[in-house]
Amino acid sequence: MKNALFRCKTCGAEYDARKPVFRCSCGEPLDLSWDGSGIDHSQRCQAKRYSAFYPFENSEWVPLGEGGTPLVEEKAFASELGLADVRVKNESANPSWSFKDRGTAACVAHARALGYSRIGTVSTGNMAASVAAFGAAAGMETFILVKGDMAEEKMAPVAIYGVKLLRVQGAYDMLYSESLRLGEERGIYFMNSDVPFRAAGSRTISFEIAEDLGFSVPDWVVVPTSAGGNIRGIINGFEDLLKAGMTDRMPRFLCAQAAGCSPIATAFAAGAGKVSRVPSPHTIAHAIENPFPPSGNRTLAELRKYNSVAVSVSEDEIVKAQADMAHRGLFGQPASCVPLACLRKARADGTAAEGQTAVLVMTGSGLKYTAAFAAHRLSWVDCSLEDLGEKLK
Amino acid sequence: MKNALFRCKTCGAEYDARKPVFRCSCGEPLDLSWDGSGIDHSQRCQAKRYSAFYPFENSEWVPLGEGGTPLVEEKAFASELGLADVRVKNESANPSWSFKDRGTAACVAHARALGYSRIGTVSTGNMAASVAAFGAAAGMETFILVKGDMAEEKMAPVAIYGVKLLRVQGAYDMLYSESLRLGEERGIYFMNSDVPFRAAGSRTISFEIAEDLGFSVPDWVVVPTSAGGNIRGIINGFEDLLKAGMTDRMPRFLCAQAAGCSPIATAFAAGAGKVSRVPSPHTIAHAIENPFPPSGNRTLAELRKYNSVAVSVSEDEIVKAQADMAHRGLFGQPASCVPLACLRKARADGTAAEGQTAVLVMTGSGLKYTAAFAAHRLSWVDCSLEDLGEKLK
Repeated sequence: MKNALFRCKTCGAEYDARKPVFRCSCGEPLDLSWDGSGIDHSQRCQAKRYSAFYPFENSEWVPLGEGGTPLVEEKAFASELGLADVRVKNESANPSWSFKDRGTAACVAHARALGYSRIGTVSTGNMAASVAAFGAAAGMETFILVKGDMAEEKMAPVAIYGVKLLRVQGAYDMLYSESLRLGEERGIYFMNSDVPFRAAGSRTISFEIAEDLGFSVPDWVVVPTSAGGNIRGIINGFEDLLKAGMTDRMPRFLCAQAAGCSPIATAFAAGAGKVSRVPSPHTIAHAIENPFPPSGNRTLAELRKYNSVAVSVSEDEIVKAQADMAHRGLFGQPASCVPLACLRKARADGTAAEGQTAVLVMTGSGLKYTAAFAAHRLSWVDCSLEDLGEKLK
Repeated sequence: MKNALFRCKTCGAEYDARKPVFRCSCGEPLDLSWDGSGIDHSQRCQAKRYSAFYPFENSEWVPLGEGGTPLVEEKAFASELGLADVRVKNESANPSWSFKDRGTAACVAHARALGYSRIGTVSTGNMAASVAAFGAAAGMETFILVKGDMAEEKMAPVAIYGVKLLRVQGAYDMLYSESLRLGEERGIYFMNSDVPFRAAGSRTISFEIAEDLGFSVPDWVVVPTSAGGNIRGIINGFEDLLKAGMTDRMPRFLCAQAAGCSPIATAFAAGAGKVSRVPSPHTIAHAIENPFPPSGNRTLAELRKYNSVAVSVSEDEIVKAQADMAHRGLFGQPASCVPLACLRKARADGTAAEGQTAVLVMTGSGLKYTAAFAAHRLSWVDCSLEDLGEKLK
């Protein structure tokens, strides 16, 4: 690994990125500070195509085919909303079928560079599968800590990777901090939700969006937001492109949340600088149900810096967006469809103007959260072979 | 659509590809005959990157981000098998998480070129979701016919796309032919398992493999085989590359089947020219459980032409291969893992020689067939927050 820094955008502190630092001593998250840039057009995989944007040696990456996901033009949504162009960045086309693989790949490279042979994470969903997949691929001892009440049917798609899966009874909030403490003590690199290289992994979403748009920048990038690590990474990615002279402006960002758990959107609307804990979070968009996002304060600051916004939408709006996206061929998990619902709201109140362009980040596959089917009126017809002709009229 | 032909490789008959022809009058399948070639390196999506290999106008495609899937290097398998290089073509990174999207995209383009506004398919699995997704994206009236005994939990991931889903009581075999007959009568383009453009869609798997290997050709390409449309398409793809001068030889193919339903491997071993119906098919590799494959005879002929083989493996070998692939970070549905099991067998009996290279086609996501979890001894540990330190030792 080459010489690089982690920088706290909040207090300005800097740390040697070749040491295991996961958070600034001021309490805020850290971002990679590294000036490399460049694209290897002969490569499809994130780790190879954009390796110049990372301080790693090639041998430190364990590529599993992450990144290189499609940017799908959705004329129906553009037409509905009076926008010039709407595209969906389909992150379900990653090795474990969510955007998490980008950050996981970068964290695994960092863990290897630092000499770790053991990694872990605390997650209830996408991140558990992602870290399990990459830990398996890297041949590292991998610990996945999940909530005590996680259903068996959700355990199997993680356990299949052959990792050490621990279902921990007790306060889930404490599990996060306890994992970091124990990780330091036991030499386990815990790549939790918003650690520096997880955000640094999400930057490649921005690189690919820009590339696929011929390095023009959309007016809006709409990101489902939970801990805040993904939107931080996407903002950093566009900053890096601008710094490298590959683009000529920043987009505006729309931090998309469910009203049932919207700490960032609530603080943003109140003009607050810090997020407050949501007492009883509840939303079908389970993957973004984080009541006290560790990158919440930083995300608020970034949104204000870039004339951006945070929007929250109702359960009904989310379910409708999930159906509408599936009816266009894109079946995302509920959290993935919050961006469409939020863009509709932003367009209705004039935040997004007629004729603008937008990219919606679809974070994960609809196959990941089948409980959502119950919220839809799905139907089919039973018939006999003899009646088939009648049914096909 | 430009002028192109369908050709029967078996009897030599030719048909105008601008007409709805799905099968040769001799009973064997048809292949696209079209001399175009070329790669648009600025595009990621199959429909745009390889459009020169198809007779369609750009406006006839409805791209949903299909293709552009990763080719993942698997050093552990290479080392285990004494091979120089083993890679996995991960087709679960498609929009509906299986290889079917390639053929579906090509069939939808063909249906649109021919003026159809209604499409359909007969399927119990991956193809149903794929045609539903692309039918929805294209805004076409879409009929999905499934078996009368299909479980409700398998219906929902198809119904979510908002298509017309029909569960048909009666003989499933007859449903296939009845759908083609009714399709002709009612103006519905049925894009079933091995129609010409479904096979023509699978060619891009070969194009991408060749591109990612710098246009060198692997010694072996291993393909899970059900109806036979996919392996036919992959063989055609390598033929097209050779014809275009992009490669200098053909690979050998390994037609991978489950012993519980191996009509092609059985006929191949017997030296027969035609497949016979398997009376009681049964395998965990449900996606390739076709007892009487419509492209079976053609596949036999192609295998012999290219000094290739067909191999079948036991349920235990398939389950072990699924676990072993997941333990390397790649969680495929059981059918997707049959190639690894077959390559092991081919290596053990010397069919594949030491130092050779192989590509395994992983056809679909493990999330698609969760019933397979029951075949594995998956385990996890329950513990308290207080005991966590002990568990992470």
